[in-house]
Amino acid sequence: MEIAWIGTGIMGAPMARRLLRAGHRVRVWNRSPEKANALAADGATIAADAAAAARGAQAIFIMVPDTPDVEAVVAQIEPALARGQTVIDMSTIAPAAERAIAARMAGHGVAYLDAPVSGGESGAIEGTLTIMVGGDETAFAFARPLFEHLGKRATWMGPSGAGQTTKLANQIAVAVTLEAAAEAIKFARAGGIDPARALEALGGGAAASWQLSNLGPKIIARDYRPGFFVKLIRKDLRLVTEAAEHAGLKLPGLALMVAMFEAARTLGHDEDGTQAVAAALDSVSGLK
Amino acid sequence: MEIAWIGTGIMGAPMARRLLRAGHRVRVWNRSPEKANALAADGATIAADAAAAARGAQAIFIMVPDTPDVEAVVAQIEPALARGQTVIDMSTIAPAAERAIAARMAGHGVAYLDAPVSGGESGAIEGTLTIMVGGDETAFAFARPLFEHLGKRATWMGPSGAGQTTKLANQIAVAVTLEAAAEAIKFARAGGIDPARALEALGGGAAASWQLSNLGPKIIARDYRPGFFVKLIRKDLRLVTEAAEHAGLKLPGLALMVAMFEAARTLGHDEDGTQAVAAALDSVSGLK
Repeated sequence: MEIAWIGTGIMGAPMARRLLRAGHRVRVWNRSPEKANALAADGATIAADAAAAARGAQAIFIMVPDTPDVEAVVAQIEPALARGQTVIDMSTIAPAAERAIAARMAGHGVAYLDAPVSGGESGAIEGTLTIMVGGDETAFAFARPLFEHLGKRATWMGPSGAGQTTKLANQIAVAVTLEAAAEAIKFARAGGIDPARALEALGGGAAASWQLSNLGPKIIARDYRPGFFVKLIRKDLRLVTEAAEHAGLKLPGLALMVAMFEAARTLGHDEDGTQAVAAALDSVSGLK
Repeated sequence: MEIAWIGTGIMGAPMARRLLRAGHRVRVWNRSPEKANALAADGATIAADAAAAARGAQAIFIMVPDTPDVEAVVAQIEPALARGQTVIDMSTIAPAAERAIAARMAGHGVAYLDAPVSGGESGAIEGTLTIMVGGDETAFAFARPLFEHLGKRATWMGPSGAGQTTKLANQIAVAVTLEAAAEAIKFARAGGIDPARALEALGGGAAASWQLSNLGPKIIARDYRPGFFVKLIRKDLRLVTEAAEHAGLKLPGLALMVAMFEAARTLGHDEDGTQAVAAALDSVSGLK
């Protein structure tokens, strides 16, 4: 299939590479050209601009950091789009923005899916992402074989915006569950328990979580190298907070995690992994 | 083996029953005698008082609600204890209280383990509890074959009190992770997502947790029937808070959950399951 891939950063590049390896023809474009150029070795065509990448492609993927970035890409490709194309935004952005874009695309006869992912860089490389999809079900059926190269599970969540809403719910759970792990480890260590042994004891029961078993060992080692950046979860939690306020929801765990990751940023951890939230705990309680 | 089992409530009764079925001779005692009497049908001997149960038993188990309850049982059995016996407290109580009791028992030549459990009533019935043990390692080696009838995993965590400290760390993770699940479900539902579908999407990735997959469906159904009581996690979190303050730790997620479960109690959910914390979220944000 003729595919356009716009945004070849830490997530987008390995995802585009998986579509190339599956035999698809992929034209790539990225705001910083050197990141797109790296994909030429994998057989990608390097497009001169976003519109050139999009023109005539059956599926046009977008994977960029934030709402304004998606809106900018959509504005650039819009003049090049034609009836029957499908645009698939895999970025994590505001659900309301996706609904507005999808409505505009529908006016051009262009299908639009919001399809954010969970699973981080390793999931992008290994093709084990979780993909949460909002939009027209026919468009989802069209995109599904492509999603199968990228993730182990693609779930249709509902109409336009539903993928983003699900992803934001996911990020609430990720952030608050990480705090659970960090506080449990902090408490055990301060109480003189070997934290690795505590992790083993806690990992088999009602305290078990992906965050505890995957980030717990890094928290114990105070290894803050990034899997998923503090700066990106801060962006996601800002989107959640806006959507929650819009819906009239009060979510105190979410509010706490906005404060905790802000503390991590203040301590210089914005380019570190989310587990650096443990450093914010250390900063108030000491290295016990 | 001659075993005494003191405290035959919702957890203690099925645990004592498992030891009976494994062929041990068990004398039981409970403050409310009718709960102990129910075990006669399983072959238990009903003791007249705690001291009579303990006298001459090789292993004396205690499973009661709180620190003062354990201290009261210990005071009752102390005159009947003799050198070489092992007392195993499986209640969840303050680590400092266990250390004080263990020191006093050592003066009588009696071994003392703190061995709290995680896994709830179903774990007690099925023998799949996680058991976290503090105290002398020789006593742990003696008790291990008995623990194998009660749980799928018994881990020696360190000297006296270490079992309780680990259990309290476990309860921090349980409580805060439950909030993560409740808020994610609340957000998804308010955003028009089918919450069961959201649970499926979130359960396969970085948001996954035991709380989400086991209590999530109950939160969605607003089914607050108890697995583990709000009143008991409130007690546990009080113990955690005391120990954290003693250690000079500031744990904001813990503090939040003390407030959330207090809100659940105020709403009349003290005898409901911990997942009723979702009702406290509903009370501030409405049934969206």
